[in-house]
Amino acid sequence: MKVVVLGAGNVAYSLCHVLLQHQIEIVQIYSRTLLSAHALRDFLGQEIPCVNDLKKVVSDADLYIYALKDDCLQGVISQIVTNEQAWHIHTSGGVGWEVFEGKKNYGILYPFQTFSKAKPLTDWCEIPLFVVTNAEKVDDSHFLVRLARSLSSQVLVVQPEELDKLHIAGVFANNFTNYMYCCAKQVLASTSIPFPVLIPLIQQTAQKIQTLSPQEAQTGPAKRNDKTVIEKELNILQSTDKTLTDIYRLLSEGIVRNG
Amino acid sequence: MKVVVLGAGNVAYSLCHVLLQHQIEIVQIYSRTLLSAHALRDFLGQEIPCVNDLKKVVSDADLYIYALKDDCLQGVISQIVTNEQAWHIHTSGGVGWEVFEGKKNYGILYPFQTFSKAKPLTDWCEIPLFVVTNAEKVDDSHFLVRLARSLSSQVLVVQPEELDKLHIAGVFANNFTNYMYCCAKQVLASTSIPFPVLIPLIQQTAQKIQTLSPQEAQTGPAKRNDKTVIEKELNILQSTDKTLTDIYRLLSEGIVRNG
Repeated sequence: MKVVVLGAGNVAYSLCHVLLQHQIEIVQIYSRTLLSAHALRDFLGQEIPCVNDLKKVVSDADLYIYALKDDCLQGVISQIVTNEQAWHIHTSGGVGWEVFEGKKNYGILYPFQTFSKAKPLTDWCEIPLFVVTNAEKVDDSHFLVRLARSLSSQVLVVQPEELDKLHIAGVFANNFTNYMYCCAKQVLASTSIPFPVLIPLIQQTAQKIQTLSPQEAQTGPAKRNDKTVIEKELNILQSTDKTLTDIYRLLSEGIVRNG
Repeated sequence: MKVVVLGAGNVAYSLCHVLLQHQIEIVQIYSRTLLSAHALRDFLGQEIPCVNDLKKVVSDADLYIYALKDDCLQGVISQIVTNEQAWHIHTSGGVGWEVFEGKKNYGILYPFQTFSKAKPLTDWCEIPLFVVTNAEKVDDSHFLVRLARSLSSQVLVVQPEELDKLHIAGVFANNFTNYMYCCAKQVLASTSIPFPVLIPLIQQTAQKIQTLSPQEAQTGPAKRNDKTVIEKELNILQSTDKTLTDIYRLLSEGIVRNG
């Protein structure tokens, strides 16, 4: 199988590494700039041809993987001309398959994890890998399912609407969780207490969820509906930052209602 | 040194274990019910006298540690009569030292971690331990500082106002973070996707913060100010849950402003 990877960002770094690990041949890397394509090639340590012109993307590969920013997907995919039988997949949970208009075989392979170039994940075995495809029948013998199974031990075939909700769940579990760390840091900014003090608590919070449901693990003033502490802390926040105050109020109300 | 521990909840379990580990003698355990005091004693595996009547608390101990629910602290502390020289400390980050009115030596020893009886932390060495005291001069020879240093390698002496802010930071880093996990679970409730799928992402989110600042680690549609994805996801949420929609909107706005 010959694969073209389009993109040289956070996901592409990890994906290319994992593909090569499983002896899947990458015949070309496309990136908007040769500099970033070459940086990825150097990271991989293999002589993979790099291009920065969509017209130079080879047309005879078996699989085109678009690991691009969400808002670039449609524009790039529509310009790629290939054999009709070729497969086209992107790796985003935030973009539907309408971007594949005009293609015959397409789907989404969404690795449910947060990626960074600086520290590429070199093993996808434990990463849940979601498969969405336009094929009528999706069983174990389906090309995308087999590809996904070769990369991860946790493959889930889902409907496009489910992928949308999964992406939203990921926004809460990752983006918004990380933003809570930002807020905590902001609260400490006016004290002598350094941010790293929070790290053991953050780790323990994430670990608890491995054995308890999030409802069971919930603690704090809002869980106890302790209005005295909530009011006291809202007053303290109010004098420093409106956004933090609004967030504290809304999330406390949510926890109280959640019971 | 003779210590009385008042309380038999999440913090008391871990605290008592750690005190005994460091050869500090617990002469009595008080709890509102003998049942819970005995459960704690059994967990510790030592023959410690238990009482459920505040009048029976011994008056000649050197240190009284109040590991009680926030809203019980004042009521219990005011009823405890001891030698004037005795030390009185509580372990809450949410309650100031005004609850010690009438006592001579007092302070707060706030272990900055989330505790649960079901899985008591048996080592405080890595837990940041915050010390607040009414003593005029607080140096390394201070009783509370020495006690704290014997339990943890990370002892910070702070002002009462700083403790308030630390507690709020903890609400964000622990309570609200855990609530984000709850929200993510709620989003998945209407799909075939099971909650544990989120666990690797949750772990990775917490791990990233050990090497990156929360601002550096921030990703997602709001970080990119990707209005198309944000609007799409708000629309999906709107049709199912108002609270989740409000939270998604407020936190996204916060991240966009944060840059």
